[in-house]
Amino acid sequence: MAEPMAMKQVASVFIQSLQGEPGMSLAQRVRVYRTVLEGVRSGTLRPGTRLPSARRLAADCAVSRGAVDEAFEQLQSEGLIERRVGDGSYVANPLPAGAVPAQVPAAERPASASAQRVIERFAPHLGQWSRLEVATELFALPTLHPRNVPTQDFPLDTWRRLMNRAWSEPYRSHLNYGPSAGLPQLREAIRRHLALTRGVHCEAGQILIVNSPMQAVELIARVLLEPGDKVWLEDPGHASLPVLFEVLKARAIGVPFDGQGLDVAHGRRLAQDARLVYLHPLGQHPLGIRTTAARGAELLRWATEQGSWIIEGNYNTEIVHEGVPPPALYTQDHGERVLLVGTFEGVLFPSLRLAYVVVPQQLVTTFTAMRGLLGEHAHVATQLALTAFIEEGHMSAHLRELRQRCRARREALLAAARAWLPGWARLGPTAEGMHAAIHLPAFAPDIEVFRALRKLGIGAVPLSSICWHERSVNGLALGYGGTDEATITETVGVIGQVLRRFEPGAAMS
Amino acid sequence: MAEPMAMKQVASVFIQSLQGEPGMSLAQRVRVYRTVLEGVRSGTLRPGTRLPSARRLAADCAVSRGAVDEAFEQLQSEGLIERRVGDGSYVANPLPAGAVPAQVPAAERPASASAQRVIERFAPHLGQWSRLEVATELFALPTLHPRNVPTQDFPLDTWRRLMNRAWSEPYRSHLNYGPSAGLPQLREAIRRHLALTRGVHCEAGQILIVNSPMQAVELIARVLLEPGDKVWLEDPGHASLPVLFEVLKARAIGVPFDGQGLDVAHGRRLAQDARLVYLHPLGQHPLGIRTTAARGAELLRWATEQGSWIIEGNYNTEIVHEGVPPPALYTQDHGERVLLVGTFEGVLFPSLRLAYVVVPQQLVTTFTAMRGLLGEHAHVATQLALTAFIEEGHMSAHLRELRQRCRARREALLAAARAWLPGWARLGPTAEGMHAAIHLPAFAPDIEVFRALRKLGIGAVPLSSICWHERSVNGLALGYGGTDEATITETVGVIGQVLRRFEPGAAMS
Repeated sequence: MAEPMAMKQVASVFIQSLQGEPGMSLAQRVRVYRTVLEGVRSGTLRPGTRLPSARRLAADCAVSRGAVDEAFEQLQSEGLIERRVGDGSYVANPLPAGAVPAQVPAAERPASASAQRVIERFAPHLGQWSRLEVATELFALPTLHPRNVPTQDFPLDTWRRLMNRAWSEPYRSHLNYGPSAGLPQLREAIRRHLALTRGVHCEAGQILIVNSPMQAVELIARVLLEPGDKVWLEDPGHASLPVLFEVLKARAIGVPFDGQGLDVAHGRRLAQDARLVYLHPLGQHPLGIRTTAARGAELLRWATEQGSWIIEGNYNTEIVHEGVPPPALYTQDHGERVLLVGTFEGVLFPSLRLAYVVVPQQLVTTFTAMRGLLGEHAHVATQLALTAFIEEGHMSAHLRELRQRCRARREALLAAARAWLPGWARLGPTAEGMHAAIHLPAFAPDIEVFRALRKLGIGAVPLSSICWHERSVNGLALGYGGTDEATITETVGVIGQVLRRFEPGAAMS
Repeated sequence: MAEPMAMKQVASVFIQSLQGEPGMSLAQRVRVYRTVLEGVRSGTLRPGTRLPSARRLAADCAVSRGAVDEAFEQLQSEGLIERRVGDGSYVANPLPAGAVPAQVPAAERPASASAQRVIERFAPHLGQWSRLEVATELFALPTLHPRNVPTQDFPLDTWRRLMNRAWSEPYRSHLNYGPSAGLPQLREAIRRHLALTRGVHCEAGQILIVNSPMQAVELIARVLLEPGDKVWLEDPGHASLPVLFEVLKARAIGVPFDGQGLDVAHGRRLAQDARLVYLHPLGQHPLGIRTTAARGAELLRWATEQGSWIIEGNYNTEIVHEGVPPPALYTQDHGERVLLVGTFEGVLFPSLRLAYVVVPQQLVTTFTAMRGLLGEHAHVATQLALTAFIEEGHMSAHLRELRQRCRARREALLAAARAWLPGWARLGPTAEGMHAAIHLPAFAPDIEVFRALRKLGIGAVPLSSICWHERSVNGLALGYGGTDEATITETVGVIGQVLRRFEPGAAMS
C-alpha cells in the first residue's frame, strides 16, 4: 500500500542469506559487506531501512559477531550506513553521491532453445486472443468498455465493516484452509439467492464456491471433457473462451444466434456430437439476445439425446429491465445435465474473486474431490463477508439501488442512441444487464470504427474480433453500467460523429 | 457470518422470480402465493424475513398489485405472514404448526449414464489420492498433521488494520480487476524478500502472483508441458501432485532420495528424458533432506543437457534452525531453466491464498498472457495488505518471532523423541521448517500405526501412503509448527506408547 501512506518500518529487515557461498574462501566480513553493498545498489535495501543489530545478523546468517562489526564499520566509513547509538544501524538516507551506480539496463539475454520452443508453441493461441488489443488489461478499462462495472456504486463502507468482522479474533480459525467446496453458510445463502432471483431451486450441497466463472468452466472441462471433445460456444461471446478450451485440448465450435437465442439447428449441423455447450440464456454478452423457452427446450432435447452437458451462465441476471425472463434452463432440466455458473463480480465488484457453480447431485463428490486435489479453495474471509452481505439484506438493498441506477443509465443510452447515432446503426436488445451491442452495416467496418474510438479513449469492442466463425457480425459491444448518464450521452454523441465519417459519400478525416 | 452474530436484516428480501411459468394459465395471485409458501417450506424465506411491499413485489415480478394483495391476504389468513401497518410484511416468526412439512429426504436419483461415465473415469485417480483418508479436508486437521500451521501466532490485529486500509475509499479503484501478473508493488516487495531471505536475485517483473503453489504448478505445466511429457516428482512428496500431473495428461515419475537430496542418477535411470522436475531443495516435505550444493549442480547439469525445466519449491525456507543452507538452485542457474515457486501460507496463514512464481525473463510474456487468458488474478485487497505487511516490517518481526517459537517447539519435539520413542524409531532431519519424519522398521508398518494414531486424534501421515514407487519408505510425517510444546511432548509420548505395541514380542492391544 505504498501509494497514499508513507512507509513506517516497525522492525529491522530480516536478512538470512549472505552474498557468496558459505565455506568458500571469501571472508565472512566480506560476505556481510557485499550483501549490504549489493542490497543498497539493487534497491533491495532502500535508504532509511533499519538493519538488524550486529548480534542478530551474526546469529541469523551463522557468521561471527566480529565479522559483522568489521563489515558495518567499513560500510559506515563509506557513508552507506548510519549507526545510531542505542538505536541501531540504518541504510544512509540520502545515500552518498555515487553509492548507487547508474542503471545500466541488463543486456537482453537470448532465449534458450527450450524457451524459444515454448514461445513459438503459444504464439498462435495467445496472438489470436490478444489481437487488436481487445484483451486490454482489465484493471485499466476505457469508457464504455463491456467489462466496465459500476464499482463506484458499491457500498464500500458496509463491506469494510463486514470484512473487518471476518478478520476479528472470533474468526481466527478461518485463517486455516477453507473447505474445498466453499463455506457451508455461503453455499446456503447463494441457494436462497438463486431461488428468489432466478427461480433456480437446488440444494446448498450442489453449490461449489470458486474464484471466478473461468475457474468454474475450467473445473467443469477437467471433469466432463476428454481430449478432442467438441464444445459449442456462443459466437460472438466471451473472447478468451475458445482459446481456453483449445488450451484444455478440447475443440471449440462457434454457434451463431438468431432472434430466439443460440441457433441449435446450426449447432447440430456444425457438430451434432458436441459434449458440452456454454451459453447465457439471459444477459448474453455481447448481443443481449434472450434465449426463448422454446429454444431452451430444443437445446435440452439435443443435450439429452446426445448425453451432453450444458453450462448455463448466470451473469448479471439480477438486473432485469424489461418484462419477465424465461425460466432458467436449470429449472427445466431438474439438474441432470445443466450446470449453472454464476458470479457477483458484475453487480458487486470484480476483484471480489468469488463465483459459484451448481453441479448435478450425482457429481458433487467428483467435483469436490477434483477441487480438493487441485488444492484450491476460495478466499475464506471474503466468503464470510459475502455471506453476511447476503444474509443481512445488504445484497437486496444494493441490487435494488443498482437496478434503479442501471435503468437510468440505460435510458440515457437509449435516448442518446436515438438522438446521436445515424439511422443505419441499430442498437440491439438491452432487456437486462448493463451492456449493449450496436450493429453496423458493411460500409462501417467495426475494426476501423474501434480503432478510431480507442484513440478517443472509448472502449467499445468490435464484434467481429470476438467472432471466429460467424463473419457476418459487424458492430460494437459496449458496457454502460460503470458510466454516469452525462458521460454516456456525451460518449454516444462522439460515437455518432465517428460513425458518420464512414457514411458513403462522407469526407473521411 | 452466521456464527457469533444474530442476523439483522437491513432491507426486504429481493424477489425477482415467481413460481410457475409466466403466460401459463396459472393466475398471478396463485404464483405469488406459491412462491412465498414454497419459499417458507424450503427454508428460502426464513421466519422473520422481511418481504418486499406489495407495490415493489408487483413491479419486480411484473404482476399486478392486486394479485400480490390477494396473495398476501391469503398468506396472512393462513398465519404464514404478518402484515404490520406502516412497516411491511414479514414471514411469521414462529411459523404456525404444520406450516413446514416434515422433511422427507429426497429420493436418491440414479446417476444418468453420462454422470456414471464421469464418476467411473475419475474413480481410480481420486480414489488413489484419497486413500487412507490422508486427504483429510485441510480445515479440520488433527494434532501434528503435517499441514497444521501456526495460525495462533499470526498477528491478526495488524493484519485487520492493513486489510481495513485496503478496503478504504482511497483504494476504491482496486475494486476493479487486478493486473494478471499481480500488483507491481507486491512483486517488488517479494523480490526484496527473496533476495534477503534466500539470496535469490531476480527482477520484480519476473515474479507473478498466483493464488497457491498448486496454481503456480498448474500454470507452469500448462505452459511448459505437452501431453505425455514425463515429470520427476519427489518420492515421497506432496500427496496430490502425481494425481494433478496425471489429470494434466503428463506422466509422473517418482524419484527417491539419498542423503544428498533427490537421487538424480536414479531419476536418469527411470526417465532420462523427463521434461520437468519439481523439488524442494530446502525444507523438503516430508523427509526434511537438504539437497547439497553438489547434488543441485548435478541436477542442473542434467536439466541443461536435456533442455528440461526445474521447479524449485520455496516453502517455509524463512524458518532455518541449523547452519547455513546451500544457495538456491535458482541462483546457480541464473534464471534460465529454474522456476521458483513459493508461498507465505506456512508462515502466515493458509487462507491467505497468495503465492508467487519466478519465471525466466524470456517467458514472462507467455506466462502473463496465459494467466490473463484464464481470467485469473489474485485477490487484490489481500495483495495490498501483504505488500504493506512486508514493506512496513511486520513480516520481519513476525518471522523472527515465529522462528523463535518454532525452535522451542522443535526442541520439545527432539527432547520428547529422545525420551519417549523406542530406540528403533528414528527422527529424520529437522534443520528447517516445521515438520519432521519418524522412520520405522518393517515390524511397525506405518499404515497400521497411522490407523491407531488417528483413532487417538493424532494426525501423523504414513510415509508409504505418499510414496508411489519407493516402497522401502516406512514411517510417519508430522508437522509441529501449529502445536504448543506441552502438547507436542504429550503427543509424542502417546506415539511412543502406540509404537511399542508393535515391538516384536509385545502384546498387541
